[in-house]
Amino acid sequence: MTSQTDTVRMTDAALDYLREHQDQHLAQLDAFLSIPSVSADPERVADVRRTAEWIVDELSRLGIERATLHETSHHPIVTGEWLKAGDGAPTVLVYCHYDVQPADPLEEWIRPPFEPRHENDRVYARGAGDDKGQLFMHLKAVEAWMKTAGRLPVNLRFFFEGDEEVGSEPIEQFISDHAELLQADVCVVSDGDTFDDEGTPAIGHGLRGIAYWEVKVHGPRQDVHSGQYGGGVDNPANVLVRMLASLTDADGRFTVPGFYDDVRELTDDERAAYASLPFDERAWADETGVAQPMQGEAGYTLRERLSARPTFDVNGLWGGYSGEGSKTIIPAWAAAKISTRLVPDQDHRKIERQVVDHLKAIAPPTVRVEVKVIHGGAPALTPLDHPGVAAAARALEAGFGTAPLFQRSGGSVPVVAALDAHLGIKTLMVGFANPTGNFHAPNEWMSLRNIRDGMASLVHLWAELGAMGADELRG
Amino acid sequence: MTSQTDTVRMTDAALDYLREHQDQHLAQLDAFLSIPSVSADPERVADVRRTAEWIVDELSRLGIERATLHETSHHPIVTGEWLKAGDGAPTVLVYCHYDVQPADPLEEWIRPPFEPRHENDRVYARGAGDDKGQLFMHLKAVEAWMKTAGRLPVNLRFFFEGDEEVGSEPIEQFISDHAELLQADVCVVSDGDTFDDEGTPAIGHGLRGIAYWEVKVHGPRQDVHSGQYGGGVDNPANVLVRMLASLTDADGRFTVPGFYDDVRELTDDERAAYASLPFDERAWADETGVAQPMQGEAGYTLRERLSARPTFDVNGLWGGYSGEGSKTIIPAWAAAKISTRLVPDQDHRKIERQVVDHLKAIAPPTVRVEVKVIHGGAPALTPLDHPGVAAAARALEAGFGTAPLFQRSGGSVPVVAALDAHLGIKTLMVGFANPTGNFHAPNEWMSLRNIRDGMASLVHLWAELGAMGADELRG
Repeated sequence: MTSQTDTVRMTDAALDYLREHQDQHLAQLDAFLSIPSVSADPERVADVRRTAEWIVDELSRLGIERATLHETSHHPIVTGEWLKAGDGAPTVLVYCHYDVQPADPLEEWIRPPFEPRHENDRVYARGAGDDKGQLFMHLKAVEAWMKTAGRLPVNLRFFFEGDEEVGSEPIEQFISDHAELLQADVCVVSDGDTFDDEGTPAIGHGLRGIAYWEVKVHGPRQDVHSGQYGGGVDNPANVLVRMLASLTDADGRFTVPGFYDDVRELTDDERAAYASLPFDERAWADETGVAQPMQGEAGYTLRERLSARPTFDVNGLWGGYSGEGSKTIIPAWAAAKISTRLVPDQDHRKIERQVVDHLKAIAPPTVRVEVKVIHGGAPALTPLDHPGVAAAARALEAGFGTAPLFQRSGGSVPVVAALDAHLGIKTLMVGFANPTGNFHAPNEWMSLRNIRDGMASLVHLWAELGAMGADELRG
Repeated sequence: MTSQTDTVRMTDAALDYLREHQDQHLAQLDAFLSIPSVSADPERVADVRRTAEWIVDELSRLGIERATLHETSHHPIVTGEWLKAGDGAPTVLVYCHYDVQPADPLEEWIRPPFEPRHENDRVYARGAGDDKGQLFMHLKAVEAWMKTAGRLPVNLRFFFEGDEEVGSEPIEQFISDHAELLQADVCVVSDGDTFDDEGTPAIGHGLRGIAYWEVKVHGPRQDVHSGQYGGGVDNPANVLVRMLASLTDADGRFTVPGFYDDVRELTDDERAAYASLPFDERAWADETGVAQPMQGEAGYTLRERLSARPTFDVNGLWGGYSGEGSKTIIPAWAAAKISTRLVPDQDHRKIERQVVDHLKAIAPPTVRVEVKVIHGGAPALTPLDHPGVAAAARALEAGFGTAPLFQRSGGSVPVVAALDAHLGIKTLMVGFANPTGNFHAPNEWMSLRNIRDGMASLVHLWAELGAMGADELRG
């Protein structure tokens, strides 16, 4: 165990190191961003692999042990570890991804996406923010500790994937097969952004889960004439719209019995955290082009509904005639893709079954209803009173000079749910990209300020977490 | 005016003529059926025209005046008239179509579709029943009168079209432009079938109308992520299914205000006519492959609902994601084709507007709803107490030896609605095809019995109608 004074001294030394080597690090970042690791492009398979190899070399160079490239069903996964922080020290798992989005449309890039340039205190390149820039910041924060103190204040494990932009298909199997390489007291995921472009940092502590179905209602053997049979043959498209419409009530709540049983209510602290988030509803609506937000579930603010409450969506509809003009048929079938976003502590497997059973139960005897579960994922929540949250908050405030905001996200991140489900590891989402940084668009960028303050935050974070015992961190 | 005894004598002579010339007529029918008048096939344009010319020649040969081939926007229309029945004699318009369905799949025909064969007391060929066989029967009934009495008991006009199987597009314009060629006290349409294959004739006296719309609900500018925006951005597909579901109530009635205002209730006579129709519900359901009929509007039998009550159908649904697996989007839009079948005295133009207004009124302010009227057609009803109905019933009983059944049909026949709308002419649907005669399928056939008894019925029909004054027939 290191004394608090020692820790402050060592942290300062690591921060000095980052300042002194900034130009060198940015040049190295450019080299890393120059490798076109587009996971969706079959012609870039070798480049994706080269990026993984680059990381393995870098980890080894930093003194990280067992730095390994693992073959998967798709692109490689990279792991490594440094476990010499001493008895009782916590172990932290760091997750980032090294693959990037395709760069099309190329003609909209002011400079080629894989030739990084520095301008307006920004780095422009595909992957600058999402997520190679952030992975690189982790490498440099580790380097700063190793080159100054010769050690890290915590045990670290690394988990870097190359399939995030194409669905993270290999990770569930990998987590299930390689628990021994990933086991940790908490996970830090850096694949998001700060709260705003003015440098207010954010800690993401919750994600929604999902359950997704395909529903097909079958009626007559084939399309039949709506004149001859209308009024006698029940219309599968009429039945489908009635069934789907019945799944929400006038208050915007999902009607399947038992659906809300396991929903964890927001705590007062969480509602206060939501209320403290700056939010411009007009700007939010303009972003999507809608005239106004939906009314939604009564008793919850828009921000709460967007991430802390479950939803129901019809994602697709098809069946019958959709061409020019008219075709007077009762279609043989009609189908829909539907899904719910889930929140803690809803169990997606239980919900999947409930909805299948409910749809079959409400189907009239005039039709045959087929329901297939297409996919599901668990929600995740790291409570605001988790000891890691406070540690991360202190680190971010030290790095950015501004206290972070706490937020739950409405989407799903497969790795977070899988780590919780398989290994019981809670996650802190500590992201450094810029909110308007064009992640999946041309001219992606990240500010040098976020790179600098983010690396400083990580240097602090390891010190903060290292000051806790593993038992204390697990809460 | 001819005496009743004279009429009986002349009718018998005409019937004798048909019997004596049966072989000759069937040979001529084969020649007529051999011309492949497939209106949907661009390679058959010349054959369709040749068929129209064949009819013009035949009409002229029979002494029908002003037999004319009219050019239209598509295939020709043929008209002709014989108006010498004397002062006060009624004028009857005869409608049939001379075009036929495509013959595919050809490999399922036991013999080529345009090489008629006679077997099992049937004529097999494309068009045998639908509708060239019936058009031919009209020609021969006229011939029988002209070759024996040298005259017809009524004034007749003929209206034969070549686009029935492809939507009858030219007829509305033609009717509107050529009232002077079509004006009549009643119309006889022979393009349907007898009540059963045992030779029970039928008189169709009602058709439903239709109104047809396309509805499109627009939400966000483009598809948005259902995790990020779900709970805040109203989902156009959710809205669409709710709006469509709200259009019918639990009793199966259409909910648009005013929709039932003009619906003419069934008379006791009509309900008795429905009740007297033999109907095997099990066989009806088996025909379509449904487990059972829908519950439908309360207070009406299945047969009544199928033709005397309005309906609402979703004819098609599309929007969002319908591919393999899942896509977690709130779609930018979702659309549907919807239609109602209408009954007398509903006005399709009024209903078209009501539904557009209603859909816009119930749309939530979070979306933009577009509604387009795709097409509409009026319903038609010739009341059971129309004098022509009784005359046709006597004629059919004389021809078939069995009293006819009266029925309303659930579909629409554009020509019937157009004749009523433009010229105020009521129609009697007197069809002679066999119900199981494969109209739109391979191996189409018509029984020699229906040809024989049908032609005899037409000979009687002109005598029956000729025995009435025009004033009496118009009711």
